[in-house]
Amino acid sequence: MALWVRFARHDGAEGFGTLGEAAGSVAAHVGDIFDSPTPTGETLPLEAIRLLAPLRPGKFIGLWNNFHDLAAKTGAAIPETPLWFLKAGTSLLDPEGTIRPPTGYTGKVLYEGELGLVIGRRCKDAGEAEAAAAIFGLTAVNDVTALDILTSDASFPQWARAKSCDSFGPVGPAIATGLDWSVLHVRVALNGRVRQDYPLADMIIPPARIVSLISREVTLEPGDLIACGTSVGALPMRAGMTVEVSIEGVGTLRNVMAG
Amino acid sequence: MALWVRFARHDGAEGFGTLGEAAGSVAAHVGDIFDSPTPTGETLPLEAIRLLAPLRPGKFIGLWNNFHDLAAKTGAAIPETPLWFLKAGTSLLDPEGTIRPPTGYTGKVLYEGELGLVIGRRCKDAGEAEAAAAIFGLTAVNDVTALDILTSDASFPQWARAKSCDSFGPVGPAIATGLDWSVLHVRVALNGRVRQDYPLADMIIPPARIVSLISREVTLEPGDLIACGTSVGALPMRAGMTVEVSIEGVGTLRNVMAG
Repeated sequence: MALWVRFARHDGAEGFGTLGEAAGSVAAHVGDIFDSPTPTGETLPLEAIRLLAPLRPGKFIGLWNNFHDLAAKTGAAIPETPLWFLKAGTSLLDPEGTIRPPTGYTGKVLYEGELGLVIGRRCKDAGEAEAAAAIFGLTAVNDVTALDILTSDASFPQWARAKSCDSFGPVGPAIATGLDWSVLHVRVALNGRVRQDYPLADMIIPPARIVSLISREVTLEPGDLIACGTSVGALPMRAGMTVEVSIEGVGTLRNVMAG
Repeated sequence: MALWVRFARHDGAEGFGTLGEAAGSVAAHVGDIFDSPTPTGETLPLEAIRLLAPLRPGKFIGLWNNFHDLAAKTGAAIPETPLWFLKAGTSLLDPEGTIRPPTGYTGKVLYEGELGLVIGRRCKDAGEAEAAAAIFGLTAVNDVTALDILTSDASFPQWARAKSCDSFGPVGPAIATGLDWSVLHVRVALNGRVRQDYPLADMIIPPARIVSLISREVTLEPGDLIACGTSVGALPMRAGMTVEVSIEGVGTLRNVMAG
């Protein structure tokens, strides 16, 4: 088990490493996070760095309708394959970063707390065992959505656009390896009040099957990120609100909505 | 005016450069194609190289319903803003590369010949003049689509999935700078028979406005690619067929469907 983070030093230089057991410092590494990274021996106190999103996803995939509880509430059919969209990589937001709706947009902006699967090995046409082994670790994702953009054109639901606005992809604070996803919950607090708290065991298509099925059509590569979909309780945020997505063992991804 | 290409030498080493006036050789360059690349002085005959897709897009955006003629035929409303989806970067296919539907997929695979806008400068909240200046050049795109995937779930149209299969993103053969898009046609020939031949002047939302409007929400970066949508005549391909997307001044993007 390890907690991988990326960081910027105060001089702007970027690096990555593992959070120490006391969680008060980071052991810096060099090389490729997904391919035998090497510790430099340097330990950085958290005060000396600012955490960045723990990866820069090559592909940022998001699932729709992947929890039984939400499907029951919305009346959506239970899917047999992952129903997914892509978020632009430029939507990525660091932990503690500010969610900024586009200039002039006055519609609803939803948080959606989700489990993120971080791909660590290239996979194509992978069976479920190979797919499970290709998942490097887990992170937390806030799949922020401009609801009024999604639904603004009657002929074309604008999934990519509604979810790709700059700052609409908070990820982190860490990538946890060695966790059992099936016993975890995703919790989202808005200004400290818990609004989502759902068990990942309620997932319709579980992680290894998601990766396996997507890989039948699309090659997955180290650094790709798959957000597993959200469950009940996703709500609009108002200006100035703090949103925290927490997954035990991963940490708390905290962001503020611009106000 | 220049024609920028990327290439692989026979030993696998990759490079980029400009096609010579006689189009029989490439003047190799080094540096950043979008930021004052430097000629090395080396000239490579086309026999010594294999052309690659001329860029590796950071974002690969595709538009839906952006030609009056097609909208009239389908009865779709004329959009006021670009209606777009994202294709996975891993769908990218080189000129002369083979389009391979996913294993086990037996549904329709459509070609869609399109103009591609290559972004050369970072832009965010750009007005139309700035947006026009951010377009480095034009290329040809075949926005290959697995039609039966797109429509296989009644509750969720699967744009990203249907268009992101490996090899479903042929681009090239070159990026042409200094062309006037508004006088050009996109022509697609299937086994030599012309199936699409539409004027880009029929575009609903023109290039600079596409870039300007997208940049209100999503930062565009050098190397991003926007396919402007297709018009009438997109049809299924059968195994073994050759599909050629031609734009005068850009060249012919030729691919074969696996059979």
